[in-house]
Amino acid sequence: MRDPSVKAALDAAKNNEPKTIERQMQVCGIAAPPFHETARGMELQRLFTSLGLKNVRVDKAGNVIGTRPGAAARPNLVFSAHLDTVFTDDSVKISREGALLKGPGIGDDCRGLAVMLATIQALDEAKVQTPGTITFVADVGEEGLGDLRGMKALFYESMPGQIDKFISVDGNGLDIVNTGVGSMRYRVTFKGPGGHSYGAFGMANAIQAMGRAIAKISDFKVPANPKTTFNVGRVGGGTSVNSIPTDAWMEVDMRSTDVAALKALDEQFNAAVHEAVDEENRRWNNRGKVNAAPELVGLRPAGQTPEGSPIVLTALAASRALGFVEGLREGSTDANVPMNMHIPAITIGGGGSGSGVHTLSETFDATDSWQGTQRAVLLAIVLAR
Amino acid sequence: MRDPSVKAALDAAKNNEPKTIERQMQVCGIAAPPFHETARGMELQRLFTSLGLKNVRVDKAGNVIGTRPGAAARPNLVFSAHLDTVFTDDSVKISREGALLKGPGIGDDCRGLAVMLATIQALDEAKVQTPGTITFVADVGEEGLGDLRGMKALFYESMPGQIDKFISVDGNGLDIVNTGVGSMRYRVTFKGPGGHSYGAFGMANAIQAMGRAIAKISDFKVPANPKTTFNVGRVGGGTSVNSIPTDAWMEVDMRSTDVAALKALDEQFNAAVHEAVDEENRRWNNRGKVNAAPELVGLRPAGQTPEGSPIVLTALAASRALGFVEGLREGSTDANVPMNMHIPAITIGGGGSGSGVHTLSETFDATDSWQGTQRAVLLAIVLAR
Repeated sequence: MRDPSVKAALDAAKNNEPKTIERQMQVCGIAAPPFHETARGMELQRLFTSLGLKNVRVDKAGNVIGTRPGAAARPNLVFSAHLDTVFTDDSVKISREGALLKGPGIGDDCRGLAVMLATIQALDEAKVQTPGTITFVADVGEEGLGDLRGMKALFYESMPGQIDKFISVDGNGLDIVNTGVGSMRYRVTFKGPGGHSYGAFGMANAIQAMGRAIAKISDFKVPANPKTTFNVGRVGGGTSVNSIPTDAWMEVDMRSTDVAALKALDEQFNAAVHEAVDEENRRWNNRGKVNAAPELVGLRPAGQTPEGSPIVLTALAASRALGFVEGLREGSTDANVPMNMHIPAITIGGGGSGSGVHTLSETFDATDSWQGTQRAVLLAIVLAR
Repeated sequence: MRDPSVKAALDAAKNNEPKTIERQMQVCGIAAPPFHETARGMELQRLFTSLGLKNVRVDKAGNVIGTRPGAAARPNLVFSAHLDTVFTDDSVKISREGALLKGPGIGDDCRGLAVMLATIQALDEAKVQTPGTITFVADVGEEGLGDLRGMKALFYESMPGQIDKFISVDGNGLDIVNTGVGSMRYRVTFKGPGGHSYGAFGMANAIQAMGRAIAKISDFKVPANPKTTFNVGRVGGGTSVNSIPTDAWMEVDMRSTDVAALKALDEQFNAAVHEAVDEENRRWNNRGKVNAAPELVGLRPAGQTPEGSPIVLTALAASRALGFVEGLREGSTDANVPMNMHIPAITIGGGGSGSGVHTLSETFDATDSWQGTQRAVLLAIVLAR
């Protein structure tokens, strides 16, 4: 921070905070439901261009990408924030009372988008020249069913092998996420011939096969550390109480911070489903068999950026240098994808505080939120080398 | 049959068959969905009265009851057919091509209603004087969710202790049902506190408790004779894949021809539900417990009229006397209720043949259907003593 351009950039970050808050509200006034981020993306594309980024483009997935060239093309730091919200309803009403902003997505992740724009502007105003390049990305599909599709597209298709470090700004606060909780989500459909409960008794039953599978899952032993979890979240099936059902289905969520633990759980899960079906068919001597089709409907890779890795140490040092110390935590964010690929990656909070994340009454309190902007600016500078 | 009035009644039954078919179609043109049998019941009330029955009345349940007094009030034979259909849609369109009648409920049980009306008319025309009394009943609630409520009301409330024998005419064919398959239906609701699949992991899960119960039910051992069955027919629960569900539910059907076997199965079922809940709670050390509430939503009593009992022997002899021999079979009909009370009871087919029972494209083939009417008339005469 003794570099005058760094000092100037940090000053710009703080001084521009009113403009940053204004942008946060403006961007958030454009709806960006899951799979419908285009309108908000177009505004980001416009802002990227007006703030001087080069080669501003939209990839196939809908990620808006802009380059701030450094002295060299590499290392290339991706600095991102996500466009999408969790709200399928596209009515957005953003309001403000003093430091308190209100509206769906105002923190998660309009704050991240605003901090990203503020970072571009601060670097520009301070004429910071970084040794490496920074690629700014407003990405799609971070939330829920989006299944990190924006990040997957970015790392696997749009910029394969071209990203050296990754930082995303997601929501409020000053936390640093260095552990990516991975998840696998299945929808399993059980099918059988079905028939009359009395007349066709002796036929394998799709719901009963599913019940056997659920009972097995319920008794899975999972490690507490690395934290590994499972959940049968939804079930359905059958048409009437006195009919042997032709179909049943369940939705299962499994998570872990550890790639190997998640893989082991996944194998155990698939084995349980098949054993359950076999047991149900054997129980009835294979008269009228049932079968199961597990479909993977969600896959968020797990990963971890070690506590002692340069990017984490840098993030902690930058936080300390700015006068605040925050611990490390786990999360399920865009950084999961690079973490899983062993690319140095973290997700940071964008400053300020808030409540009601993922509800229509979400709030963002902008008191001292410039701290988050400053740290983002500082990290952009020190990681782009 | 050497009694001239009996001969005359049988002749009337045969000769009036065209009128019987006409009534079968006419009555069937009035919708009688489950729990909405009133309109058809009013028509039966009118017909009972016009055919000379005494004390024609409607009980609280909606059963239409009319008396044909004999020389004495007892024995009192109840002769019944059911008003209700399985169709919640009340659009009825009855058509005829030659001997083939078409329309929902045309056989089950408009045939029974028509045979009952033909019996009243034949006895009247032949001036048959029976030693005992015959009480004719057009009853409600035989089908599905009706849960035999018409019969339960008749035997338990409207005419308690006043019925000595029972015969019902249900559908086509010439079968004799002397075994009443009993059934118990449960809807079980599982509830728990619920929470985030990852954050609240370690909390008991309502769906998983239910899965444990279903797995136990799937392995129930039941006797093949007396035939005893179980079926988990419908399940549901949960709101999202990544939430520990607050609720789950299942619908279970259990049947047996044997009262004791059904009772034993019922006890095993309730024990399994409670063990499953206990296991799920213990598995998670009782953090955030689940519970289960089994609700009995259907109860059809089981029963049997022994093969060697006078009423069964009489029914077989009457069939033989008229030139056809039919075996005995089991079913779930209005006769379940008196069978369970050890009151001599059978259900007979109303003659003719048919297809598509319980579908909108049900048919009734009236070829030689007068045979069924004749047997019903003969049984009314010989059992009312």
